Amino acid sequence: MRVTEQAANIGVVGLAVMGSNLARNLASREGNTVAVFNRTYAKTDELVTEHPEAGFVPTSSYEEFAAALQKPRTAIIMVKAGAGTDAVIDELLRVFEPGDIIVDGGNALFTDTIRREKAVRETGVNFVGMGVSGGEEGALLGPSLMPGGPDESWATLGPILKSIAAVAEGEPCVTHVGHDGAGHFVKMVHNGIEYADMQLIAEAYDLIRRGTGKSPAEIADVFAEWNRGELESYLIEITAEVLRQVDAATGEPLVDVIVDQAGAKGTGGWTVQTAIDLGVPVSGIAEAVFARSLSSHPEQREVSGELPGWHDADAVPPVRDADAFIENVRLALFASKIVAYSQGFDEIRAGAAHYGWDIDLGAVSKIWRGGCIIRAQFLNRIADAYDAEPGLPVLLTAPYFVEALGRAQAAWRRTVVYAATAGIPAPAFSSSLAYYDGLRAERLPAALIQGQRDFFGAHTYKRIDKPGTFHTLWSGDRTEVEAEDTH
Amino acid sequence: MRVTEQAANIGVVGLAVMGSNLARNLASREGNTVAVFNRTYAKTDELVTEHPEAGFVPTSSYEEFAAALQKPRTAIIMVKAGAGTDAVIDELLRVFEPGDIIVDGGNALFTDTIRREKAVRETGVNFVGMGVSGGEEGALLGPSLMPGGPDESWATLGPILKSIAAVAEGEPCVTHVGHDGAGHFVKMVHNGIEYADMQLIAEAYDLIRRGTGKSPAEIADVFAEWNRGELESYLIEITAEVLRQVDAATGEPLVDVIVDQAGAKGTGGWTVQTAIDLGVPVSGIAEAVFARSLSSHPEQREVSGELPGWHDADAVPPVRDADAFIENVRLALFASKIVAYSQGFDEIRAGAAHYGWDIDLGAVSKIWRGGCIIRAQFLNRIADAYDAEPGLPVLLTAPYFVEALGRAQAAWRRTVVYAATAGIPAPAFSSSLAYYDGLRAERLPAALIQGQRDFFGAHTYKRIDKPGTFHTLWSGDRTEVEAEDTH
Repeated sequence: MRVTEQAANIGVVGLAVMGSNLARNLASREGNTVAVFNRTYAKTDELVTEHPEAGFVPTSSYEEFAAALQKPRTAIIMVKAGAGTDAVIDELLRVFEPGDIIVDGGNALFTDTIRREKAVRETGVNFVGMGVSGGEEGALLGPSLMPGGPDESWATLGPILKSIAAVAEGEPCVTHVGHDGAGHFVKMVHNGIEYADMQLIAEAYDLIRRGTGKSPAEIADVFAEWNRGELESYLIEITAEVLRQVDAATGEPLVDVIVDQAGAKGTGGWTVQTAIDLGVPVSGIAEAVFARSLSSHPEQREVSGELPGWHDADAVPPVRDADAFIENVRLALFASKIVAYSQGFDEIRAGAAHYGWDIDLGAVSKIWRGGCIIRAQFLNRIADAYDAEPGLPVLLTAPYFVEALGRAQAAWRRTVVYAATAGIPAPAFSSSLAYYDGLRAERLPAALIQGQRDFFGAHTYKRIDKPGTFHTLWSGDRTEVEAEDTH
Repeated sequence: MRVTEQAANIGVVGLAVMGSNLARNLASREGNTVAVFNRTYAKTDELVTEHPEAGFVPTSSYEEFAAALQKPRTAIIMVKAGAGTDAVIDELLRVFEPGDIIVDGGNALFTDTIRREKAVRETGVNFVGMGVSGGEEGALLGPSLMPGGPDESWATLGPILKSIAAVAEGEPCVTHVGHDGAGHFVKMVHNGIEYADMQLIAEAYDLIRRGTGKSPAEIADVFAEWNRGELESYLIEITAEVLRQVDAATGEPLVDVIVDQAGAKGTGGWTVQTAIDLGVPVSGIAEAVFARSLSSHPEQREVSGELPGWHDADAVPPVRDADAFIENVRLALFASKIVAYSQGFDEIRAGAAHYGWDIDLGAVSKIWRGGCIIRAQFLNRIADAYDAEPGLPVLLTAPYFVEALGRAQAAWRRTVVYAATAGIPAPAFSSSLAYYDGLRAERLPAALIQGQRDFFGAHTYKRIDKPGTFHTLWSGDRTEVEAEDTH
């Protein structure tokens, strides 16, 4: 095959559904000519044949792929994250030149991206790790894009990425998040927040179902109604769609036919694991990850069905006023959601500080307004908060959220109380409330924990009334001594 | 210096406080002669001079150290976990021979131990990663020991370790946990459980203090009383001691003078991070880790003190019957503790399955009965449970715990309800209850999450009524199709 040299301004490597859709998205924008490459040529051929309108430049080797690209060459890798990514990078480095740009649009762990950026930089090629959110449909019609990498590459990449990104309120959902792994880091936290959001919605549904006895179709109406208010978001919208779906085979609500074991692809877990390294409490996200793993242990759930409850499983006390109860659950969902987002942005802030990234948190919330799974009205309020105070130590103290949390307060507590009383699991609701009460507590019993640690491990403690580090001679005469701060 | 050749049957490398104490413990037992080595000889000299009764064989080089040991040479490394451990191993390998035994008694991450065991095995030397619990005092008087490593080394090591371990009900607190990293894995989970246990105690204290207005000294009496019942344990005992302590400088309870920011040394976080990799929900441990990290963000807590609560901070509703309330808290603590231990043993079970370790869970609970921080009466009940049913899928379904959880049920729920109502943070109490209700739920809203995932990402779902994997054409005509199980 003969490829017209330097005919394309951008290339895509890896033509599974995400890569194909992103390539088609690129090709559909004015001024783009897209070179495409896949390890097996059959896939390339299929894409090019099925989409003649795209004007793709098919290539059958890395040499051809490189030859087809204008300089600086720009290639987006869309392969399954892992060793495959490294293999493709190695091949591209073989045929690319200093100044060219390699973009990894896969779901890489940000520490892998940091490692790859460092290695690729040595060759003079620019490496950009980019989070791509929005699934297959987003890739085709407009994703939310979170590129990291060096500033130089943004000059070339920026216009191309802006042309294909989702648009929210007139603004493309893409920003140069920060250097090296910043883009994949932010994408990771996005996914963690998505886990929390979905878990909170699931708990709201479960409480309403078991508390009021309403059918999934009736609860679909509740979510559709919620989607017209401050909870307006893609996830609330599709929850109504899922709950309304009737299974054709049985005539039952589809949600009752689906096995209640939630799968996971790991990014929610990464968010929690990373938060622990950074010392950031992300309890809402963690509870969401754990709720999925709990659901996926049928061997444990089978033997646990007979565990005692306060009430029999069938005897959950029905709520007296269903409408008031549902409004309580709505406010509890809103308040818990604020906590989950606040924890997520807290992790981004801590990650930026730790890894030296200059991340504009307001800009991050804006690029999530379109294209991605957690897109929501609500993100404008987060942008407002960071625009007003970029150094905000914790998101939920911004005026809009303080008002919302005040308004939701009684309902939130009543909902957690109901769940604990009725024996309906609401781990993310109750964990968010406990976090909130911890944050606003004047004194925490952490002082007792420090006392225990000093007792059994001589870990020392600080005093509220003077500087220094102290230890009580617990197994001696129990006087206090000044200590070296070793722990 | 002249060292008598092969005078010692065991050696210790690293003579900071843990190493010195362990060496003294070894030396105090019939039949042991202990060679000691430290990077700086001054420390060796100090130990040997201060403890002539120990009959130590001091050595000033690795060559001397090796020459001082009978074959198979057995050395316990007691240095700060990390690169230092690798450096010492390299030095020992230089002077040791095939069949000799290197024991790492530091707090290594179990994956490092697996890596080291694999590398050392190549040389013919045996490597044993060993968890040592009990702090400085335990090291001196009798720790709980959790050795991993190959079977051959246990033949030599077993008698020595049994001689120095704590003794509980006539049994030494040591067992060969399993191969390679099994010992350090189990030690890690031990520490995670310790975090949960301490957080639960801290929450119980906080609830009683704020709920009843009792003073720390009065609450010390409560804990002392609890220590005479089913909660009997080292941590409950020392909590009473810490709460009773009066600060000499101010005359205030010490717990009120200590800065309420809890430190952490990482093993609790490792436990959670590992559990996520293994798909095991350890929410109680995670909430404990997060509670510590929340406490350690003064910049956030400062701006959060004015966040709205249902009640003013000063207007927590006093409980009507303090004694009944305290009994509720006691039962809530007991029930939550059962959950935390059940989750911890679940992680060990999952880790054993994943890494191919043959771990006797009953034996593990028995070696924690003495020497270590979480030593408690309660562990006998765990041993009983696993003796009766070694394959128990989840600990809290054992008869003793089912009875206890049934008895604690109403009190547990009332305590969580009170915390949520009064605005007192009880993240570990409420998370444990939510986990419990999740485990015993007949249906979980995870089915809705699977529906959402299928909607936005075509992640597919299973059906309760037939095998296979399915996808609804959400953006098509919404019929259901069979799908490849790709997610």
